[in-house]
Amino acid sequence: MSEHLYLKGHPKAGAFHFVVEPFTEDYTGRLSWRNLGNQMLRCADMHAGSHGFGYEYTQRTRHAWVLSRLVVEMQEMPRTGEAYSIETWVNSIYRQFTDRLFAITAPDGRVYGYGCSTWALIDMDSRQPMNLDELPNGGFQNAIIPQSVPIEGLRRIRLKNAETVREVQAKYSDLDINGHVNSVRYIEMMLDLFPKSRYDETPARRIEVAYSLESYYDDVLTFVREDVSEQEALVEIRKNGAQPIVKATISFG
Amino acid sequence: MSEHLYLKGHPKAGAFHFVVEPFTEDYTGRLSWRNLGNQMLRCADMHAGSHGFGYEYTQRTRHAWVLSRLVVEMQEMPRTGEAYSIETWVNSIYRQFTDRLFAITAPDGRVYGYGCSTWALIDMDSRQPMNLDELPNGGFQNAIIPQSVPIEGLRRIRLKNAETVREVQAKYSDLDINGHVNSVRYIEMMLDLFPKSRYDETPARRIEVAYSLESYYDDVLTFVREDVSEQEALVEIRKNGAQPIVKATISFG
Repeated sequence: MSEHLYLKGHPKAGAFHFVVEPFTEDYTGRLSWRNLGNQMLRCADMHAGSHGFGYEYTQRTRHAWVLSRLVVEMQEMPRTGEAYSIETWVNSIYRQFTDRLFAITAPDGRVYGYGCSTWALIDMDSRQPMNLDELPNGGFQNAIIPQSVPIEGLRRIRLKNAETVREVQAKYSDLDINGHVNSVRYIEMMLDLFPKSRYDETPARRIEVAYSLESYYDDVLTFVREDVSEQEALVEIRKNGAQPIVKATISFG
Repeated sequence: MSEHLYLKGHPKAGAFHFVVEPFTEDYTGRLSWRNLGNQMLRCADMHAGSHGFGYEYTQRTRHAWVLSRLVVEMQEMPRTGEAYSIETWVNSIYRQFTDRLFAITAPDGRVYGYGCSTWALIDMDSRQPMNLDELPNGGFQNAIIPQSVPIEGLRRIRLKNAETVREVQAKYSDLDINGHVNSVRYIEMMLDLFPKSRYDETPARRIEVAYSLESYYDDVLTFVREDVSEQEALVEIRKNGAQPIVKATISFG
């Protein structure tokens, strides 16, 4: 396969190739955010695994990678039948956090979009984050690639005149293998706050999410939304009438 | 790949090979019904396409395959990382309907489960079903394989003492590429009517669905449920307070 990758096949990066399969699109015929998001998480896991810190390692040592921030900006979503590649790499490590970047490209080198994410490695027993400088064998330090992506990072998300727009209880199908509501499912739920007429006009182009707490089966999730412009909305998800667990900015256009 | 297929690689059948990818499981670590169901629909489409009646044909002639009945019975769901194959074939044609069967197997020949489905080919303009005996080039008649599957077909679904248990509006992410609520999404919504404690004990083993009408964005879906035993429940989905559009039996254990 001749792929024109963003990092040109850098040996420390992961590059994974996909085709948009039928039933993974939204109604407009383009890859859904849910499926893109879950593929990005899967690529993150496969790439971490190739450096010794994937699912096998975390299970054995009773740790878990926890997603803290995610920004994805898509110039375009691939359509059904189109090929795309997800490249992912570690860009920096600072004590308890690591930044992982993504580039999503077409086989001809066109860029569909970019992502940046921040992760912590949590001890499942103590719930404390590990110092990532102290991972065995030099850890991810060996994996760092300084190349950045040309999108803005997570901007501050502060709601002022927010309105409660929906309340749902976390259900069976919302849960991931750890029993938490899946990180990408929150994104899908937030996109579902907007009417179809919005998507008839223009797709969601950029999604920024700050994750602060997990939610579990039966938790009541309250969705609070503030439209800051025609093209941009802030969303906060609160758990059981109390603390915010997810904050996001969704940009259309 | 040495696969021990149910139909032993019959040239008129379609055989498609998958691995359960991370983020396609439910919280118990096994392939979710949503992902299994969508893969089965995808295999149906690929197999129909290999006989000349797939998406390309239906788009060109302004027809659409419409799922009328689906029964899936799983002895077990494959776990994350496990390989599975979906075989599908046309078992019979009777005027406006065709029966399509499925076998889901492990590489060692173990059977995960079976499916049977009934489809009509609808003219998108007149909304009338085609006579499937009159498809061009002999149509699916050439594709028929008499081999059956050892599961019971769709049983009559008649609710007597049903109770309304949920009401939701169809949202952006529920829609398929035709703008209808996705057939498999109804199954996920119906599974979400049961508490997690139910799945802690025992998985859904058999799902029977009769689809009678489509629903669209913003339609109000009312879920009515009747538990006929510890292990079995009937569910009806009504659209906008009126006609039933989906009826199902869900069996656990």
